[in-house]
Amino acid sequence: RDQKAINLNDPFANEPFRLPVLRINSQKPFNAEPPLEVLTDSFITPNELFYVRNHLPVPDFDLENFKLEVLVGGRKLALSVDEIKKKYKPVTITTTIQCAGNRRQEMSQYQNVKGLTWGACAIGTARWTGVRLRDILLDAGFDLNDNRFKHIQFNGNDKDITKSSYGGSIPKHKAMSIDGDVIIAYKMNGVDIPRDHGYPLRVIVPGYVGARNVKWLHQVVASDEESSSHWQRNDYKVFSPSTTFETADYKKAQSIQEMPVISAISTPAEGSKVESDDGVIEVKGYAWSGGGRDIIRVDVSADGGKTWKEANLVKDKPGADDSTHSWAWSLWNAEVEVTPGKKNEIVCKAIDSAYNCQPEFIGPIWNLRGFLTNAWHRISVEVEDDE
Amino acid sequence: RDQKAINLNDPFANEPFRLPVLRINSQKPFNAEPPLEVLTDSFITPNELFYVRNHLPVPDFDLENFKLEVLVGGRKLALSVDEIKKKYKPVTITTTIQCAGNRRQEMSQYQNVKGLTWGACAIGTARWTGVRLRDILLDAGFDLNDNRFKHIQFNGNDKDITKSSYGGSIPKHKAMSIDGDVIIAYKMNGVDIPRDHGYPLRVIVPGYVGARNVKWLHQVVASDEESSSHWQRNDYKVFSPSTTFETADYKKAQSIQEMPVISAISTPAEGSKVESDDGVIEVKGYAWSGGGRDIIRVDVSADGGKTWKEANLVKDKPGADDSTHSWAWSLWNAEVEVTPGKKNEIVCKAIDSAYNCQPEFIGPIWNLRGFLTNAWHRISVEVEDDE
Ligand SMILES: [Mo]
Ligand SMILES: [Mo]
Repeated sequence: RDQKAINLNDPFANEPFRLPVLRINSQKPFNAEPPLEVLTDSFITPNELFYVRNHLPVPDFDLENFKLEVLVGGRKLALSVDEIKKKYKPVTITTTIQCAGNRRQEMSQYQNVKGLTWGACAIGTARWTGVRLRDILLDAGFDLNDNRFKHIQFNGNDKDITKSSYGGSIPKHKAMSIDGDVIIAYKMNGVDIPRDHGYPLRVIVPGYVGARNVKWLHQVVASDEESSSHWQRNDYKVFSPSTTFETADYKKAQSIQEMPVISAISTPAEGSKVESDDGVIEVKGYAWSGGGRDIIRVDVSADGGKTWKEANLVKDKPGADDSTHSWAWSLWNAEVEVTPGKKNEIVCKAIDSAYNCQPEFIGPIWNLRGFLTNAWHRISVEVEDDE
Repeated sequence: RDQKAINLNDPFANEPFRLPVLRINSQKPFNAEPPLEVLTDSFITPNELFYVRNHLPVPDFDLENFKLEVLVGGRKLALSVDEIKKKYKPVTITTTIQCAGNRRQEMSQYQNVKGLTWGACAIGTARWTGVRLRDILLDAGFDLNDNRFKHIQFNGNDKDITKSSYGGSIPKHKAMSIDGDVIIAYKMNGVDIPRDHGYPLRVIVPGYVGARNVKWLHQVVASDEESSSHWQRNDYKVFSPSTTFETADYKKAQSIQEMPVISAISTPAEGSKVESDDGVIEVKGYAWSGGGRDIIRVDVSADGGKTWKEANLVKDKPGADDSTHSWAWSLWNAEVEVTPGKKNEIVCKAIDSAYNCQPEFIGPIWNLRGFLTNAWHRISVEVEDDE
């Protein structure tokens, strides 16, 4: 609705077009997610349906004069997008990116939290093409044995009214390990990265929280400390359920980086009426874990968790990218027996390759900012009598 | 008790001496764990108190004529222990090793399972000195780009009556990555590895289940498939709570390798009477996660999980080993408020650096073999009235 009003003093006057089907959580900055019914229609999320999590206005970009700055100690490397494409070996990494606030709606229903009310669709999977951050940093003179550097910081070109930009950082080890698969991407699913997703350059940090996949990247800095950004130091941290805004010690808590195991049901929809086929319905969804850990099992229940059926897992095509790790989600489907003529509570839970599991209830993971809601996903459906 | 009877036909006639303080779960093969009260007295578990998990008799060893066999494709490398020590760079890795059956007792109390009845002490932490498996395999001609090899198999020198030995395998990637920190160890906490723990050579696979840390190592094989050992193919796998011995599909389930987050209370003891100090008692324990993930928080409750207090974490000394990963446990302690004159339910739960958490109850992770009991640890103590 605001998109029609043109106001040159409005920092949000030049936002890109978005599909009306997106569910908007915040207009300025723009935050929106696709509908749950379509999220798992394809293994790769179409760019137009990929959730958008902006902290600031989408920046305008002067590609002609743009150079990525890479600062390592006293040295500075400046690279145009074309130079990046020509100088380093291109790789494609398929990864699921998830907002730390995904499924916050459920946590806020349990007890009020502060943050955007995301449903279960602040997650998506794309093939990103770019060059290894490691290659650029080594080219910039980064010495792997230099213990001065402990973190790699990223700054975006999106700025608030004080001209301070969005930023974040990751540990040196993740950035410099070949296994980390961290890239500076210029393509998302085969096309230039759309403006909402970071045009022209975005850091892709597979298996880490979305917030570190900094968009509109314009600066990379090797440092002895984490990014001084608000979003690194005073946000994106999780406290115990008994911690309040008064007692939260942001200095002590660890930044969210690698992500825990999660899953969700995409079909049927919460509260819907479904017809069973001889007492059986089909249930579908997604499951994912951070750190390159694969999903090894998804259990589905139609009786609130008393009995379980193992779902079929749908994985990416082998050899579809240049990684040897499982950075992408698994889609899943299962046929479960239901009881017609009443409400059935459908539940899913996933297990990752380190046999980590999801917590049963939200209470013990509740936290004041509503991050990392990875409890079992539960929906209630009315199953109609067969006739 | 059996140790005094000398019978040359008994394959268990030549077992090493063990401290009587160990709680024995099985005499032949020998399986025992230290008492919970002493487990967390020191960050490094003394060798004599380290849990023993033997699948077969402890083998006799002719060190003079011993050579480790390393088979890579058609090539064979044979190395004496001295050659291993001289030829490759020594490294020390501090790691927690845990049996997949740790805390099985609790799971079997919930519902019967098949397996040794371990308490919460089938876990321990040691500094292992040896050489990188990677260095030996590269020396044996292993080509990192050769996709024929997908697993590295290990065979021990402990044998059953059919002369078949204990074995296991790990994925190639874990074995060959420098980050994996897999070593062939010859020292445990500064001395020759004790007979019960694998003398003279043991594979150390940090962050993986104890079962792959093959003791009395005598053969390493690069292969296209997992070890054909019973313990790799038909054991050490986890099924859903609804899976029975009749429906369990061992071919489909993934071997336990990397381990999930766990914690336990070591003091006070379950069922004990404790005196509070002005309504406060001290609680201590351990917490650990596999895959090199650190423990970032332990929450302790004295009211069964309604309210939580964050514990103090005790970590290893920085720079104590040659790894950059967190392979070792965290010890923890907390002072919690209790209610004198009644039973108090003390609970702990840990969160690892990927924000994975422990499940609240055993029911949803119950499995027929009783593996990976990592639900919240709960004990009940009688708090005496202050006077
Ligand atoms: Mo986020
Ligand atoms: Mo074990």
